[in-house]
Amino acid sequence: MEKLILSEIEIIKRGVSEIITEEDLIGKLKKSHSMQTPLNIKAGFDPSAPDLHLGHTVVLQKMKQFQDLGHRVIFLIGDFTGMIGDPTGKSETRKALSKEAVLKNAETYKEQVYKILDEKRTIVAFNSKWMSRMGIEEFIYIASNYTVARMLERDDFENRFKNNKPIGIHEFLYPLIQGYDSIALNADVELGGTDQKFNLLVGRDLQRKFNMDAQIAITMPILEGIDGIQKMSKSLGNYIGISEDPKDIFGKIMSISDELMVKYYVLLSDVDFTVLEKIRNGQIHPMNAKKNLAFEIVNRFHGQSAAKKALEDFERIFSNKEVPEDLKVYNFENSVNIIDAMKKIGFAQSNSESKRLIIQGGVYVNNERVASIDYFFEKGEYLLKVGKRKFAKLVVNNKNK
Amino acid sequence: MEKLILSEIEIIKRGVSEIITEEDLIGKLKKSHSMQTPLNIKAGFDPSAPDLHLGHTVVLQKMKQFQDLGHRVIFLIGDFTGMIGDPTGKSETRKALSKEAVLKNAETYKEQVYKILDEKRTIVAFNSKWMSRMGIEEFIYIASNYTVARMLERDDFENRFKNNKPIGIHEFLYPLIQGYDSIALNADVELGGTDQKFNLLVGRDLQRKFNMDAQIAITMPILEGIDGIQKMSKSLGNYIGISEDPKDIFGKIMSISDELMVKYYVLLSDVDFTVLEKIRNGQIHPMNAKKNLAFEIVNRFHGQSAAKKALEDFERIFSNKEVPEDLKVYNFENSVNIIDAMKKIGFAQSNSESKRLIIQGGVYVNNERVASIDYFFEKGEYLLKVGKRKFAKLVVNNKNK
Repeated sequence: MEKLILSEIEIIKRGVSEIITEEDLIGKLKKSHSMQTPLNIKAGFDPSAPDLHLGHTVVLQKMKQFQDLGHRVIFLIGDFTGMIGDPTGKSETRKALSKEAVLKNAETYKEQVYKILDEKRTIVAFNSKWMSRMGIEEFIYIASNYTVARMLERDDFENRFKNNKPIGIHEFLYPLIQGYDSIALNADVELGGTDQKFNLLVGRDLQRKFNMDAQIAITMPILEGIDGIQKMSKSLGNYIGISEDPKDIFGKIMSISDELMVKYYVLLSDVDFTVLEKIRNGQIHPMNAKKNLAFEIVNRFHGQSAAKKALEDFERIFSNKEVPEDLKVYNFENSVNIIDAMKKIGFAQSNSESKRLIIQGGVYVNNERVASIDYFFEKGEYLLKVGKRKFAKLVVNNKNK
Repeated sequence: MEKLILSEIEIIKRGVSEIITEEDLIGKLKKSHSMQTPLNIKAGFDPSAPDLHLGHTVVLQKMKQFQDLGHRVIFLIGDFTGMIGDPTGKSETRKALSKEAVLKNAETYKEQVYKILDEKRTIVAFNSKWMSRMGIEEFIYIASNYTVARMLERDDFENRFKNNKPIGIHEFLYPLIQGYDSIALNADVELGGTDQKFNLLVGRDLQRKFNMDAQIAITMPILEGIDGIQKMSKSLGNYIGISEDPKDIFGKIMSISDELMVKYYVLLSDVDFTVLEKIRNGQIHPMNAKKNLAFEIVNRFHGQSAAKKALEDFERIFSNKEVPEDLKVYNFENSVNIIDAMKKIGFAQSNSESKRLIIQGGVYVNNERVASIDYFFEKGEYLLKVGKRKFAKLVVNNKNK
């Protein structure tokens, strides 16, 4: 059994930021084995943003790993707080949702989530089930189990408090609701991003106060976007949406740095530790490794034929013998005119030089000669060739679209 | 009308600690007159301690004054929080009460309260009426209208926070409930002790947030007990309970200092300003003033014949020609043996001297010779005479009884 647990632990630890505590986790796993009872693995999702990108799937991948290990995965939709929204009206992103909107979003969620999780073995829960029935007496009792000082230890509260920025009292109540969800669900493990650490620990504390076994808090790193710097986010335009066009997903993954690729492999891929090691130490060429990753991700969300097609399209364009291996990639946030693009990436010194090069017929996009100086790069990715030697890859995110 | 309002204001201001704000109060009174609508005067009472002493009646007297001015007085029993009790179990005095206990206490309250207020014109309200029906969504909305920083401005929170003493999050919720009560009751004025100031202001703030006219907060001083030093309180043994024996109430009032008597007159008596002035400047002899006050109070809570009897008993015992006017008063917290009492007040140097004096027949209690060295002072008050010259008044509170 020890050996079994050790290999389980190895899988669970893959890519995690923190496990609080590993000792407790081992204890829970041992008990799970000896009692032949799966652990309850909880992860909460915000019902207001059902359009997932790869950043969201980091936690889902970890859920899948637990599911593959035979545990009971609970996909919790925080609809109760979603229906409240931001009562102060200050947050645009936290509008109150109607019951209908919540259910509709939940369906959208499921469609996407079941591309990772096994539908038959996933429990979908809504916290309104217990929260909307709860009386204020009980809620006050829950609140009595946590102190103001403790709550102010949360980083963002602490900062705002120190800087005299207002914290509404209701904001103290949300972590308590999240914590109580763990009680209601009898969670053994709660998963979340590192930004969720405090809230996961509230659940841990509250369970103890309710004389329950404390849940294990497992935090996952926040995934960087394709720029490799900032958190993947729709508003920053550096995201890969799982419902995006297969070609776009493929291309975006091909555009990330080698370093980021390794991270993506750890957090997003199903490949096992031996393959991971080969990618890390360069035994697999980065270009091939990226293609494999892009294929795996597109396959996951759009199926094998879409993945094959995306790969072929990519190779047709980029696997030209002429194209240098260290092809430079340039990201554009918005659609861009070819004249501007050439100037920006330094392939031409001026607009007039750009125009001249195009008119002379020496400019190619995706292996086709550019016939007009009005050529426009819309969202997508492109191989740009100027003269015989200058090659560049342009990735246009067009976040305004 | 101006003149009418000025005389109203004079009555309302009698004895108050603070009016927030007087300007707003004048505004409300003017509106009340012009609209011919009485103001809603709210005062909250804790359902767990229905045994009132004079300290509690300070606010009731102010309510009566408002009632006499034609306003609508609301006696609010905070049964909702009473039924919660102290969820941490740390406070002995805040045990959760059953619905039955709350109703029973409410009846006890009424019996006592209607000795001051006019039963027919008093509205008794229970905050469970709106609080137990409220959903957590609404409660969170209320909480969103108040900030953590603002709540921490309350003196006791601020001190505890600074001294790293725990504050349960539920403690932040109680003032919000009290504040919401003012919304539910559409309170124009809320009365309370000075220790309630913060909570009264929460009500004021919340009403504004709910687009209502803000209530006026009127705080009354905390009444000192018969020792003239500490707050009147059952646990300190320095209280005068309104259900106490008339003789005890009378005697206790007679035992207070002249200075405290003036305060009691302002806060507890119905006598008007001209009489008050005469008492203040000594035109009425303090001994007579005290008798009048004692009579008024006993009359209020036990009726005229009880008051007359208490006065007669007092005079029979104490208005002995021999008794000096500046009779010294000694308070005892517990029942005491005559031997100990004589030694404690300095009428005998030792136990054996006490015994000798009693056996020689020179010790009198309430004008009767003490026949036994086992004489015991139980709860009550006594004129002690030793020899021909030594007089003292003993007041035994016997708080353990």
